[in-house]
Amino acid sequence: MRVILAIGTTNTATIDGITAAGATPTLAHHTPSADAELLTYGTLIRAPTLPVSPTGCPTPALITRAVRTAHHFPLTTLDAGLTTPTAAPTVDLDAPPGNDIRDPEAVPTAHAIHATARNLAQRFPDDHLILAESIPAGTTTALGVLRALGEPFSVSSSLPDNPIARKHRVVDAGLTASDLAPGDAANDPMTAIRTMGDPVLAALTGIAHGAIDTDTSVTLAGGTQMLAVAAALRHTSIDAPLHLATTPFVAEDPTADLHTAAAALDIDVTITDPGFTDTTHPAMAPYTKGEAKEGVGMGGALYLATEAEIPMHTIRHTITTLYDHLVPTHGP
Amino acid sequence: MRVILAIGTTNTATIDGITAAGATPTLAHHTPSADAELLTYGTLIRAPTLPVSPTGCPTPALITRAVRTAHHFPLTTLDAGLTTPTAAPTVDLDAPPGNDIRDPEAVPTAHAIHATARNLAQRFPDDHLILAESIPAGTTTALGVLRALGEPFSVSSSLPDNPIARKHRVVDAGLTASDLAPGDAANDPMTAIRTMGDPVLAALTGIAHGAIDTDTSVTLAGGTQMLAVAAALRHTSIDAPLHLATTPFVAEDPTADLHTAAAALDIDVTITDPGFTDTTHPAMAPYTKGEAKEGVGMGGALYLATEAEIPMHTIRHTITTLYDHLVPTHGP
Repeated sequence: MRVILAIGTTNTATIDGITAAGATPTLAHHTPSADAELLTYGTLIRAPTLPVSPTGCPTPALITRAVRTAHHFPLTTLDAGLTTPTAAPTVDLDAPPGNDIRDPEAVPTAHAIHATARNLAQRFPDDHLILAESIPAGTTTALGVLRALGEPFSVSSSLPDNPIARKHRVVDAGLTASDLAPGDAANDPMTAIRTMGDPVLAALTGIAHGAIDTDTSVTLAGGTQMLAVAAALRHTSIDAPLHLATTPFVAEDPTADLHTAAAALDIDVTITDPGFTDTTHPAMAPYTKGEAKEGVGMGGALYLATEAEIPMHTIRHTITTLYDHLVPTHGP
Repeated sequence: MRVILAIGTTNTATIDGITAAGATPTLAHHTPSADAELLTYGTLIRAPTLPVSPTGCPTPALITRAVRTAHHFPLTTLDAGLTTPTAAPTVDLDAPPGNDIRDPEAVPTAHAIHATARNLAQRFPDDHLILAESIPAGTTTALGVLRALGEPFSVSSSLPDNPIARKHRVVDAGLTASDLAPGDAANDPMTAIRTMGDPVLAALTGIAHGAIDTDTSVTLAGGTQMLAVAAALRHTSIDAPLHLATTPFVAEDPTADLHTAAAALDIDVTITDPGFTDTTHPAMAPYTKGEAKEGVGMGGALYLATEAEIPMHTIRHTITTLYDHLVPTHGP
């Protein structure tokens, strides 16, 4: 088993009000690097600040790292379009940052990124890959890919009030700029990702494809971005079993269609509740108000914790310890 | 605790008869990438072939990986001048491959590589860093640095008949090309590395310096290349304790001066015997005939195994399993 974290950026994140993965669009460019450093080292090395949403909710990487502290799962991070250097070790996929999806081509080298990732995954020795992502504006690009494929599902958001109308406007503008109507890229997921996606989607679709080529189990750890990966696979006529591991915060999001989409795409879903209801801790309580929800493999990590019988109270305790280390001015 | 593996290349390895880290000088460029993939995954991913010496002795990375299979030590690999891409995740130090030491400058950006590495190590959260390397021709560049510093010690070799006369001729030509007499770079190790070293030495000296800056323990895992790192630190007036963990194959090499050098440089030495004497296995028996000797953190890994009370027969058994997987045509 191995967790594969693909990190990258897209200029789609510079559109105002699209993403919570960073307090500002400029800081959002650092978020994937910071997330990877947190997962690798439990602390920031080159990244300037702990990623927080505009309302102060820290990155879900904190939750995934808390699981890793107890579980020690192997982690391989892929550079799928970073803008800023990271001190986390990465495998270079030769992927530049993604363009704004309102440009004609969002990921001009999508085919090459996909091929490199597929080749890599075919050669990984593991029996099970768990796919995770960090890319600000990832749910908007996911919506873009789903629309290009003609899939009707809506998507979640890391913001408590999902700016879904804004996302739809951005996606509509993107489709127009790419000279596409919804569904025009059905059964052609690489066109969908090239015109409307992001480099992380190109990478993860390639990793999943290569894993399935070699009978390796695939768990998609995340929310609606992973639905876009699953849709891309199904539109490649891949009928292998797919497993999605996510959090209740995505599953219960009324603006997202997780269960409908999972049924339509024939995906098994595991939802793992980290038990954040009874805490007021600033790294956990915001989830119960609809912030962050998922990301950086959080749902997959919680699933691994359950499989390994690591109690959720242990994870919650580690989250507080990590947070106190990372935000030393917090608390009495 | 964390193992830091710096991998890179130098054109010094293209000099005929200098290195055993690869069957030919062309294949030697792939050796560091292959070694890092072996340590990370236990198998090769992008690297074309298992590195073997001209007489067929497989890379010591196999021994280090065997320890890692049982010990699970955290590993961070640094790209300190790779020529070929690797599927092992790496931290990019922005280091180009090294020039031939017979060029005026062997590592023109040595200062920058050192500064980047030092900064990184200052921020690593670990209490103990174990430094390892893979760079073909590394003992020749180590000899070059020792001579530039004015240190009289000789160096070991991955070849059973140490081509020491050839190394001295190469080093003499390098000093002349750099307009240096032996000792001219005393107390100026960055000049020694810039003119006569390699990018891996620049990186590891920076990592060790940054670790010592922040009171992190340092173990140098290797043979005479690590003596060059230690000498560079002592010539920076660093008097912190240094620990070198190596194999009996380096320690007993009559052409190398390990014990004299360790005493002169005030280094504690741990020698760990993997017990290869009674085996005829092609991945172990060659060590008893003076091949390979050390490298890719082998001595440090064996030290970790002893500390963790992992029996050497377990390591030896894992080596055979790994080798049978990597060289499937071997055996009946």
